[in-house]
Amino acid sequence: MTDYNNKNTMTKKKLINSISQDKGIHPNDVRQVIQAFLDKMTDCLSDGSRLEFRDFGVFEVVERKQKIGRNPKKADVPIVIPPRPAVKFTPGKKMKRLIEDKNKVTV
Amino acid sequence: MTDYNNKNTMTKKKLINSISQDKGIHPNDVRQVIQAFLDKMTDCLSDGSRLEFRDFGVFEVVERKQKIGRNPKKADVPIVIPPRPAVKFTPGKKMKRLIEDKNKVTV
Repeated sequence: MTDYNNKNTMTKKKLINSISQDKGIHPNDVRQVIQAFLDKMTDCLSDGSRLEFRDFGVFEVVERKQKIGRNPKKADVPIVIPPRPAVKFTPGKKMKRLIEDKNKVTV
Repeated sequence: MTDYNNKNTMTKKKLINSISQDKGIHPNDVRQVIQAFLDKMTDCLSDGSRLEFRDFGVFEVVERKQKIGRNPKKADVPIVIPPRPAVKFTPGKKMKRLIEDKNKVTV
């Protein structure tokens, strides 16, 4: 089972270099495409569109409902946490299967 | 306020064509890079790595705890839902700000 607390972090830079090597495309060209891709995803989500990539997954903006919170030091004063938009990611079939196969949870 | 129930769906194909036009790069080259990017993200996540893209956000595999479910027709028989891995996405600062600005929730 994967140790969830001891994760490697993969960055954009490392992914760009790896794609550049694999495909024989100059890292600057790879970077341009990847950055445009991420920027356009951000634009679409902030305009309220869903993003759907087959096998990979779906991104969408959902509304987190209003909640009542409490300050533990002033438990009698409720704090209203207003409704707010949040981004939800749902993995696609292929991603889900791979993650479940490789991260077998020991019961 | 955005109508959350009436969303446009942006697909990989549409994004690829849009990047190709903006950057003057052949759609096949854009497709190769984007597909490699998504495939490598899937590989990293299934190997238990975090993915961190500045401004955009962080992907990581987290463990959903074991839950006890009930079949409403057989309420006396608990159903154990085993622990399982799930992908969590947390938007980065820039994405979060844009989404909150453009999806103002009316209280």
